[in-house]
Amino acid sequence: MKNLVQQMDIFFNPRSVAIVGASRKVNKAGHVIFKNFVINKQRNVFKGELYPVNPSEEQILGFKCYPSIEKIPGELDLVVIVIPAKHVPKIMQEATIKHVKSVVIITAGFSEIGNHLLEEKITEIAKKAGIRVLGPNCLGVYDSETGVDMLFLPETKILSTGEEVVATPRPLPGSLAIVTQSGAFGAAALDYLTGRQMGVSKFVSFGNKCDVNEAEMLYYLLHDEKTKVIMLYVEEISNGREFIRIAKEVTKIKPIVALKSGRTEAGARAAASHTGAIAGSDQIYDAAFTQAGIIRADNMEEFFDIGKALAMQPPAEGKNIAIVTDAGGPGIMAVDECERRGLSVKKFSDMLIQKFEQLKTEGKIPRFATNLNPVDLTGSARSEMFETAVKILLEASEVYGIIVLGLHHTPELQGDFVDRVAKIAIGYRKPVVACDIGETEMALYIRSRFEKFGIPAYGSPEDAAVAMYALVKYGAYLKKSKNFEIYMDEFLKRRK
Amino acid sequence: MKNLVQQMDIFFNPRSVAIVGASRKVNKAGHVIFKNFVINKQRNVFKGELYPVNPSEEQILGFKCYPSIEKIPGELDLVVIVIPAKHVPKIMQEATIKHVKSVVIITAGFSEIGNHLLEEKITEIAKKAGIRVLGPNCLGVYDSETGVDMLFLPETKILSTGEEVVATPRPLPGSLAIVTQSGAFGAAALDYLTGRQMGVSKFVSFGNKCDVNEAEMLYYLLHDEKTKVIMLYVEEISNGREFIRIAKEVTKIKPIVALKSGRTEAGARAAASHTGAIAGSDQIYDAAFTQAGIIRADNMEEFFDIGKALAMQPPAEGKNIAIVTDAGGPGIMAVDECERRGLSVKKFSDMLIQKFEQLKTEGKIPRFATNLNPVDLTGSARSEMFETAVKILLEASEVYGIIVLGLHHTPELQGDFVDRVAKIAIGYRKPVVACDIGETEMALYIRSRFEKFGIPAYGSPEDAAVAMYALVKYGAYLKKSKNFEIYMDEFLKRRK
Repeated sequence: MKNLVQQMDIFFNPRSVAIVGASRKVNKAGHVIFKNFVINKQRNVFKGELYPVNPSEEQILGFKCYPSIEKIPGELDLVVIVIPAKHVPKIMQEATIKHVKSVVIITAGFSEIGNHLLEEKITEIAKKAGIRVLGPNCLGVYDSETGVDMLFLPETKILSTGEEVVATPRPLPGSLAIVTQSGAFGAAALDYLTGRQMGVSKFVSFGNKCDVNEAEMLYYLLHDEKTKVIMLYVEEISNGREFIRIAKEVTKIKPIVALKSGRTEAGARAAASHTGAIAGSDQIYDAAFTQAGIIRADNMEEFFDIGKALAMQPPAEGKNIAIVTDAGGPGIMAVDECERRGLSVKKFSDMLIQKFEQLKTEGKIPRFATNLNPVDLTGSARSEMFETAVKILLEASEVYGIIVLGLHHTPELQGDFVDRVAKIAIGYRKPVVACDIGETEMALYIRSRFEKFGIPAYGSPEDAAVAMYALVKYGAYLKKSKNFEIYMDEFLKRRK
Repeated sequence: MKNLVQQMDIFFNPRSVAIVGASRKVNKAGHVIFKNFVINKQRNVFKGELYPVNPSEEQILGFKCYPSIEKIPGELDLVVIVIPAKHVPKIMQEATIKHVKSVVIITAGFSEIGNHLLEEKITEIAKKAGIRVLGPNCLGVYDSETGVDMLFLPETKILSTGEEVVATPRPLPGSLAIVTQSGAFGAAALDYLTGRQMGVSKFVSFGNKCDVNEAEMLYYLLHDEKTKVIMLYVEEISNGREFIRIAKEVTKIKPIVALKSGRTEAGARAAASHTGAIAGSDQIYDAAFTQAGIIRADNMEEFFDIGKALAMQPPAEGKNIAIVTDAGGPGIMAVDECERRGLSVKKFSDMLIQKFEQLKTEGKIPRFATNLNPVDLTGSARSEMFETAVKILLEASEVYGIIVLGLHHTPELQGDFVDRVAKIAIGYRKPVVACDIGETEMALYIRSRFEKFGIPAYGSPEDAAVAMYALVKYGAYLKKSKNFEIYMDEFLKRRK
């Protein structure tokens, strides 16, 4: 399997790349991709050799242009193909002769539109020659560290007002790996994650996966140091047994979050006419994900919310959750969602309740606070009250995770409650997630400040509950597979 | 019942108001509330008489201060009470003598913390005197039109950096009425709605509802011209039968969206210790909401998403939905959510498919587009293709609503596709909702531009599907109660 890691690594870190279909025409994908590499080479981020291939050009952006890959001097690790589908087999033949290791076929127009024969043809050529192929019909690879950037979607667009705006941002460096079957969803994910300040380690869109499949990517990402959480979007999975076997190996070390569409009959029909996927029943996928320790998200927002939680917080050792809030109603909403997901927000032990009663007597939390779970500090909450309450819960052995629902609207709560809560929480191995509701200035500040301290923060009580659910679920899986302590140690080391 | 409307109207439009507990001290709720009225009076928004009541002051903010409400000259419509709970009965006695019509008790410390006797006492006084009481333990009323503003939560706060930021914004004028049992949730809702550019007609937080209940407010809002959609947050409902009877009357004319927390056993327990609510089983609520034609939201985001949809778009005449997209994967996600909610994204009729095939022949949509439903214009989509496809679907009698999932990332799609789609959609009585995924500049632009044209736009395919679900559900209810055409006529008149 070491061989597999090396094979996959060529897609992300090639010593030499040829762009077949490189173009001088600004609107062409072959221009955008080639230019991405050129810029990254100029900045010395991309360190490999770079060759544009186009029989009609002598030079593109200052680089000598080759009429075919055969004419390129020296060894060639990777070929990126951006020419019409019907010409792809010819390029594949040339790649064989040139002993190319890997090929990315960005081009669409294969099995996803019924051109199965054409896709089989290129697959056959590749197999015979031992060439690994990513795609066709994909966005390819983005890796901020190595400067490999095959995204042909324009980074900015011009509005009718004449303004230039960010359209498909390149992501910040981070710990989430994006592995997606749908290119469109991949681009959208980059846009979403960038806007929400979440960073990406590696991005790969595999499209029709005529050769390289999701399981192989998972295995590769298991060995990628930058990647801490793997985010997988699929419409169907190619080789179920192999997928489960590999995913199981991965999830013991790194969490995988999956979004699998085509759940309903009509959705499966749509998927079939999208990538030619024959989806199989959704229950089978559910069972497979569970068996493999993969956390399945119900929808897009959950997908990202869960990814963020797993990247930032340790897993929970049990399902008993405490909620501390200054907002009764939203507190109940969080309880509801926790319980619906199988977490438990049960009444605290008498001993723990007594501790809170003691605080009331000492005037350290409001006399009218409720403390059965949730702890409701009421609208009279002050920053140090949140600190005190969270500390008690972090120390309580009956509590395995804490949702801090600190709505900033109450008169006396100041922004510093975030710092106080975060500074205590970092000293414990118990997961903490936060929520503040609102979309104007202070809510945005509170949430982003929490995240600066490594506490994922959400805009609704239910989203925070879902985040905690994922941490509990992954914790239970790690415990079952006897890897909890190893993972926790690694996590705490990383957090330092 | 006309009497009831007049009674409720006093809370929103009093000719004279006394603030008992008005204060010069900046941090006191009695200061904030009084000052709200002062400012609105100075701006000539609040047109009634204004009296601060506080025995320790001669004057507050230039207004003559009264030692008690009895000393106030002339008639007194409304008294707002912001003094500690134990003193409230005395004020209620004085209100009786003064023949006050209505009282809002902002003060907490009644049944929600077990002080049932105190609450019964004030209720009894009010009943005998025929005084209507809102609260206690509430945020009271906000009405931008009349200048009634009892929100004591600070509009801005100062961060530790010295920056002043918006903390609890006053909402924009609009068509959503917020009726909430939880004050905290109410404040959060204002923050959320303002940030998302959704406007509010009236806001009322009723807290412990010792007298005025949600049903009476619904009835009042039925008669409020500005209110087009009623948003109701409750933890329990006081008088089930009356509630259903009134709600039924309302929902024939205006949609009600409800968020009811305390759904799970643990949630109900939390609700009981929050407002003293005895919640009853969740199934009973489900049944009651269905019977009354109320659309129940599953969680906070759904609540707002649905409210926006109903405010902006007409209801659907049937459940067959078409999806048009340039993004295969997200298209499938939308199909899944529609189907899971009971909508139907079925394969188009041969005739409709033929129309799209014709477009392909004419080169008006990409040759590789799929057109069974979803219509997937693929990554080659251009603005006029969206326009053409949407037009065909608007005209197709087999389609009752359209989800436009236009992801802006594809190379050739320009921002003007929004204008093109919106300008056609306005000419039809079929609901259209939109989605673009992303959180950086262009996605925000696309969504806000759609909404400028009256098409609600969402950040995930599933959210757009939920919005359409609400429009289908409300349409079905209106049809069943034979009010569809009347509502549609009203809606179309308003949209002009």
